Formats: sequence, C-alpha cells, structure tokens
Amino acid sequence: MNDAIQEISGATREFCARMASVRFAELPGRAIDEGKRGVLDWLGCALAGSRHPTLDHLLAVLQEAGGKSQATVFGRGLKLGFLDAPIANGQAGHVLDYDDTHMGGTLLHASSPTLAALFALAERELMTGAEFLLAYAVGFEAGVRTGQSAPGHHKGGWHLTGTLGSIAAGVAAGKLLGLDGKRLAHAMAIAATQSAGMQQNRGTMCKSFHAGKAASSGVLAALLAERGFDGSLEIIEGKRGYCRIYSDVAAPQALTDELGSRWEITRNGHKPYACGVVLHPVIDAMIAIRSQANIDCARVEAIDVRVHPLVISITGVEEPATGLQSKFSVYHSAAVALIDGAARIPQYTDERASDPAVIAMRRKVKATADKSLGIDQAEAVITVDGSRHRTFIEHATGTVANPMSEMALDAKFMANAEPVIGRDRAQRVRDLVRGLDRLADVRELIGLCA
Amino acid sequence: MNDAIQEISGATREFCARMASVRFAELPGRAIDEGKRGVLDWLGCALAGSRHPTLDHLLAVLQEAGGKSQATVFGRGLKLGFLDAPIANGQAGHVLDYDDTHMGGTLLHASSPTLAALFALAERELMTGAEFLLAYAVGFEAGVRTGQSAPGHHKGGWHLTGTLGSIAAGVAAGKLLGLDGKRLAHAMAIAATQSAGMQQNRGTMCKSFHAGKAASSGVLAALLAERGFDGSLEIIEGKRGYCRIYSDVAAPQALTDELGSRWEITRNGHKPYACGVVLHPVIDAMIAIRSQANIDCARVEAIDVRVHPLVISITGVEEPATGLQSKFSVYHSAAVALIDGAARIPQYTDERASDPAVIAMRRKVKATADKSLGIDQAEAVITVDGSRHRTFIEHATGTVANPMSEMALDAKFMANAEPVIGRDRAQRVRDLVRGLDRLADVRELIGLCA
Repeated sequence: MNDAIQEISGATREFCARMASVRFAELPGRAIDEGKRGVLDWLGCALAGSRHPTLDHLLAVLQEAGGKSQATVFGRGLKLGFLDAPIANGQAGHVLDYDDTHMGGTLLHASSPTLAALFALAERELMTGAEFLLAYAVGFEAGVRTGQSAPGHHKGGWHLTGTLGSIAAGVAAGKLLGLDGKRLAHAMAIAATQSAGMQQNRGTMCKSFHAGKAASSGVLAALLAERGFDGSLEIIEGKRGYCRIYSDVAAPQALTDELGSRWEITRNGHKPYACGVVLHPVIDAMIAIRSQANIDCARVEAIDVRVHPLVISITGVEEPATGLQSKFSVYHSAAVALIDGAARIPQYTDERASDPAVIAMRRKVKATADKSLGIDQAEAVITVDGSRHRTFIEHATGTVANPMSEMALDAKFMANAEPVIGRDRAQRVRDLVRGLDRLADVRELIGLCA
Repeated sequence: MNDAIQEISGATREFCARMASVRFAELPGRAIDEGKRGVLDWLGCALAGSRHPTLDHLLAVLQEAGGKSQATVFGRGLKLGFLDAPIANGQAGHVLDYDDTHMGGTLLHASSPTLAALFALAERELMTGAEFLLAYAVGFEAGVRTGQSAPGHHKGGWHLTGTLGSIAAGVAAGKLLGLDGKRLAHAMAIAATQSAGMQQNRGTMCKSFHAGKAASSGVLAALLAERGFDGSLEIIEGKRGYCRIYSDVAAPQALTDELGSRWEITRNGHKPYACGVVLHPVIDAMIAIRSQANIDCARVEAIDVRVHPLVISITGVEEPATGLQSKFSVYHSAAVALIDGAARIPQYTDERASDPAVIAMRRKVKATADKSLGIDQAEAVITVDGSRHRTFIEHATGTVANPMSEMALDAKFMANAEPVIGRDRAQRVRDLVRGLDRLADVRELIGLCA
C-alpha cells in the first residue's frame, strides 16, 4: 500500500487500531453480561431456525457445492466448510425473525452474522470463551458504529443485517484471529466491499440469507486479511467510502466517538416475539388488553392502533400469504396476538397466515402512523360490542428500557433449543454460556449444539 | 410466494420470461462472434492473471477453507468447489485490468464475473458450446441492462464489475441451468441482493476480488433458485428495487427496451492495454507520436493531454506506489507508453511503478479535463527541445468504433496464454473457441486451461 495513505489518521484506522489492541479485561461487566445474553438468545434462535424449510433449500446447495467438513451447522448433525457453515447458521439465526436487535440509532440484528462467523472460526483453532466474547463485542461495535456513521442507510433501502452485518462479522472475525490494527482495517475494507442485502427482498427467503451471507463474507474478509490481502484504509470515511455511498448523510466521527467507553452491545434488545421488532409494542398492547378485559374474539368490532411511522413502512403488509411475509404484517401480528395471546413461532407459519379466523381478525385492524410516538411505543383501542378497551405501551418488552428478564430469556432459550437438542443438552448449553467468560475452549459449547 | 405479486407484470418478470425462453438459434451471428471473441480474450486474461501474486493470497485461503475438488482454477493445476473456483477465476480474469469492457452507457467488465461463473457450472454437467455462448449473452444482457436501468450507479461510487457483475453472473448461471422465467427472476433477485463492490477499493486487491466474488454469488444464486429458493419478483423496478437504491435515477424500462433484437454483447470492447479502459486514448496518442516523431525521451520537456473528465476522476493517481495503483494513473500510463511504446503487463508491475525513469517522466505529464471530448478520445502534445508534437485520437483502439482486429486479439491471447499453458495448448484453446458454437462438451476446453 501507498505510504502516503498509511500515514493518514482517519476514522477507520483509529477505530481499528483501538479495537485491535483492546483486551478482555477492559470490557465493562455489563458488556460481558450482555454478550452472554446475546450468545444464549442467538443459539436458541439458530437451533429453532435450523428446522425451518428455508434451510432445506440452502443446505441442499451447500452440501453439493460446499466445502470440507470443518464447521458445525447447528441442529443438523452436519459440518460444512469455514465459509459455508456461516451461511447456514446465519440464515438459521435470523429466519424466524426472533433474534436480537440493537436499539441505538440502528435496528441491526448484529448477532446472526457476527456469531455465525465467530462460531465457525472458533472451530478452526482453540478459542477461549473470553476471546470469543471480546471479538463479539468488537464486531458489534463495528457494525453499529458503521451504521451510525451512515445515518441515511436504512432509509436508503438496505437490509442492515446484511450490509452492516458483513462489517460486524468481518471485524469480529478479524479480532478473533488476533489481527493487528492495519490488518483489521483491511479486514473491515474487504468486508465492507462485500456488503449487500436489499429491503426489496423482505418477506422472501433472501431476508435471512442476508445474515448468513454476511457471516460468510466476514469470515472470508478476516482470513484474507490475515494472509496479507489488502483494501482501502479509509473504507468508511474515504471520498467514496461507506458512509458516503450507502447513505445520503455522512457522519464518520460516529466510528470513534466515546470508543472504548461506550459499548454498543449494552444497547442490545431481545425479542419476546418472533417477528419484526417494530411490531412488538402493538403485540404487547394486544396481550395487555386481552389479559385485562377477557376479550371475546368473536365479538371484536375494530382494532385501532397508533404506531410509529416505521411500523407502517416496514410492516405494512396487509394480506401476507406466507409465514415469512406475516412477520412483516402489523395486521397479522395484532390479530394473532389478540386471538392466541402470543406471537411466537407457531403464530407465524404459512398455515396461520392463511387461517380464515386470522384473516377475518386482521381485516378489522386499522393502523395509524403517529410521529409523536417512539419506535418502542404504541396505543391500541379494541372495540367489543360497542365498548372500547384502551392501553398504551410506554416501552415494548425486550427493549433496553424494558428488557427481558433473565428468567424470560432462559425460558425463551429452552423453548427454542429443547425440541432440537433435548432438555439435558439445552440446560448444559445454558450453563456453559452463563460461564462463557471462563470457558477454556468454545468447541465444548459447539459440540453440544451440533 | 404471494399470488398477487406473481400476477404483476413488471420489468424483471418480462426480462426473465424472455431470457428464459430465448434459444441459441435466435442469437444474431454478430452476437455469437462477439461471444467467441469474449471467451478467447477472457481466457487469455484469466490465464495470465492466474500468476499474479494477489491470487496467492486468495488461493491460500480458498485451499484451506474452500470446497471439494469440483471446478478448475485456470492455470493453477488445481480444482476447488463450485462456489470457490469462480472467486479465483473471476479475480484472475480481472486482476490485470486487461479484460473486456462493455461500451454502451456502462463501463462494465462483464466477462470476468460471468465467464468465471459459467465455467464452474460447465464442469458440473455436460454443457455444449452453444448452450454456453447463449448463457453468456443472456448474462451480459442482464448485467448491462440493469446498469442502464440505474443510470446513476457508477457515479454513486459502486464498482460495476462487482455489483452488476453479480447480476450478470447469476442470470447467466440460471440460464445455463435451464431455469424457467420465474426461477430465473428468483436467481436475479438472489444475485442482486448479494451485489457489492466499492470504488473506494480501487488500487487494492479488492478491486479484482469484486469480480470473483460476483461470480461466486451468481453461481450460488442460480443453484439456490434451482432448488426453490425465492426472492422478490420485482427486484429491479420495485419500490426498494435495484434501480432505486443503487442509483439516484431510475429507468427500469431499460431492462426490456428492444430486448431480443439488440444484444449488448455486440457492444463489447477489448483492451490492447493492461489498465483502466479510459486511459487507452492517451496511450494510443503516446504510441502514435512516438512512432511518428522518433522522440528522445531524455529530452522531453512536457506532456500535455486533454481527456474526458472521467479520466481524471477514475485514473487521477499522481504517484502510484504499486503496480495495481499504476493501472489507475494517467500519469504513469502516459509515461510508460512514451518510454516503452507499450502498455501491457510488464508496464504495470510494482517495479515499474517505482522506476526512477518512469517517475521522472510521469511528473512531466499534465492532464486537463475537457467535457467536449468523448470517453474514447484524447488530444496530446509532447514538447521536446521546444518543438511540439501533437496528435488527436478519434476512437481508441479496442472500442466498438475501432475494434481490435482478429489478428490483434489472437496475438493478445497467445501472449497471455502461452507462458502459462504452452504454445501447443494455447493454439488448441484458440481453435476450440473459434468453433465454440459446435463444441459438444465445454469440459474439453476447460481441461486445456487447467
């Protein structure tokens, strides 16, 4: 590379120099705790997702064309190459729309790409739980901060879990490999230049594929950088850098503001419901009214919800035809939450999307955008026999302001993992993740999830 | 998928329905001839590129992490998986910046991603030369027309060979697999959602990696679509479709205008020089003045060139430090062309980029942007001992208006291929490609290039 370029101290180089040198002992306790919560929740999602039919299509291709038997595909009793297993595990982690969501200026599902990448590399050589958690936090930082440096990114039509996910995965993987600052910057550049995923594909199998492909691209970026492959050292802030071409507004300083003191993983949220996170306040509202008022579904006349405008633009699908599409329908979500008192995996199947009782109920839902509401807020009024039942959700369950309790997160994990790996193994996974910072070899954990 | 979506007749569906049904007999003779020229030129570039040090880094990773022994890496006596060999061959085809360039509103190097994808799949099962040429033309059409539907794409900072290359490769691969219109549209959506490559990485190893990654993403898209994986059927024209998010101007009708009568492969150009195509008029000018005036390099006082503004913005590197960077320097290119009377592979090495004689000469070059010039035009004035030598290039060599002759293209191929596979094999490859429309099994050709 050009010496002149190397001497420039830009945001990318500063970020990577700092992240390459940071040690586990510098992570605040809350970041470690949130890392463990993230690993536990994501493993449950990936195990539950491994049974989704979308994975059958993907695995048929990867088993034909994919690599050596190197890295575990969770829940499938199968190994694929280091570049292929992440595609499967990333897709499995995201396919149920049940995985975690960062809530600090981006709505990024960082763990599916990041952890799918890290688990593949943790099978390549011995990695301790502490090394793993540190790389996870560093990758999280890269993905979220790149998003913050490109504030118009989501509005531009990109699916952040694919685009920013690639960068999160690449930097996490590079940190796990112990790259120095310059090589970590190359890894970031190689990951960014593979960054893709279109919102146009929402409601199709591509949506969760974005997470898997991002994970694989991240692993490839880190392995290439380790071998001396190069990229621009100003990949974020450069003249044609990420924050300029993936966004109409550029804020590269976001890459380094409070770096090392603020850890974005501490603003990670976990989903109690298996659908787009912006739907959660409405679901909370339905479940709240249902439990307070003993609603007779047959007599519901109207369901009026006031929501943040993004709820309409992201999840405005009025007549979802498939389970995947129903995860992006405020109408479907309100209907099933009111009928079942739940919005978990069984509420978002192809069958429920075409269930006449659900269809009849969702046609009673009217959603109104209200700019004065927060993204985690909703108001709902259900009219039954002429009487109106109202509730207001201040902060949806699973947000940073109203997090899922340890008990709720454990229960979610067990419900996800137990049908796939059995009760005993699921409990052992949970216990290992609780002590992940002391685990001598991450492969012990991986073996339990095979 | 949603029936309602399927019923929409949009640009993507129309394009894919037509391209899925088109037969080899419908290809005009010129498209077939240009297809053969494209295959010959690209194979030479990929063979010559296979020896580039960048490939060593890449292959080290792919040999560790990559797949089974399924598809040939040209010039390396090596096979990798169906998803991995295209990364290597696509990168090898593009790494010397010597591969072909489409010249009809885009500056797309379509063949590196497209042919790297097709050659991998042609090793998977028996494919005739005619099937291969048809898929190549169809993929070319997809890449170029997507670019024309997104006219602000290049200006936005994307490296077209990565972004549009992914779509070209995916649709070509889908056509080779014989997908029907709907599955071809899914392949296009899956390819588009992997579409990436940043101009910020120009001058680094990532630039040619874009071509390889695009090839691999295209193969994956087609294999997934064949197995029933889905994506948006309005991936180009949709509300958040390709022509809206990858461009500030949307022209989706370009996808289908004159489809089937105009074949974009007939507007493909071939490079006599191993560098960015916009530099070619300047190089032509240097070589012309040198041969007319018997210039004494030691006495050159000034080199003034007037060029299209894109020459400055794309190739304005004043002090290139590496061979890869020198391929994007109008100063370096003018200097070596004047000194050597050539601008081939030996003129763009790391050594030449730091050669004191070249450095001294390139500092005498002054380049001025002139909007009145075409992208294939340049004016040059060389001042020697006070006397001025002037020339004007109307159309650079290798453009559609001034194509490389068959003889020149053959000579370029032999110069590229012979050092890697020997004279005899190179001649046999050339003869097979000349009769490619009658070749019974493309694997015969592949075997010669191993």
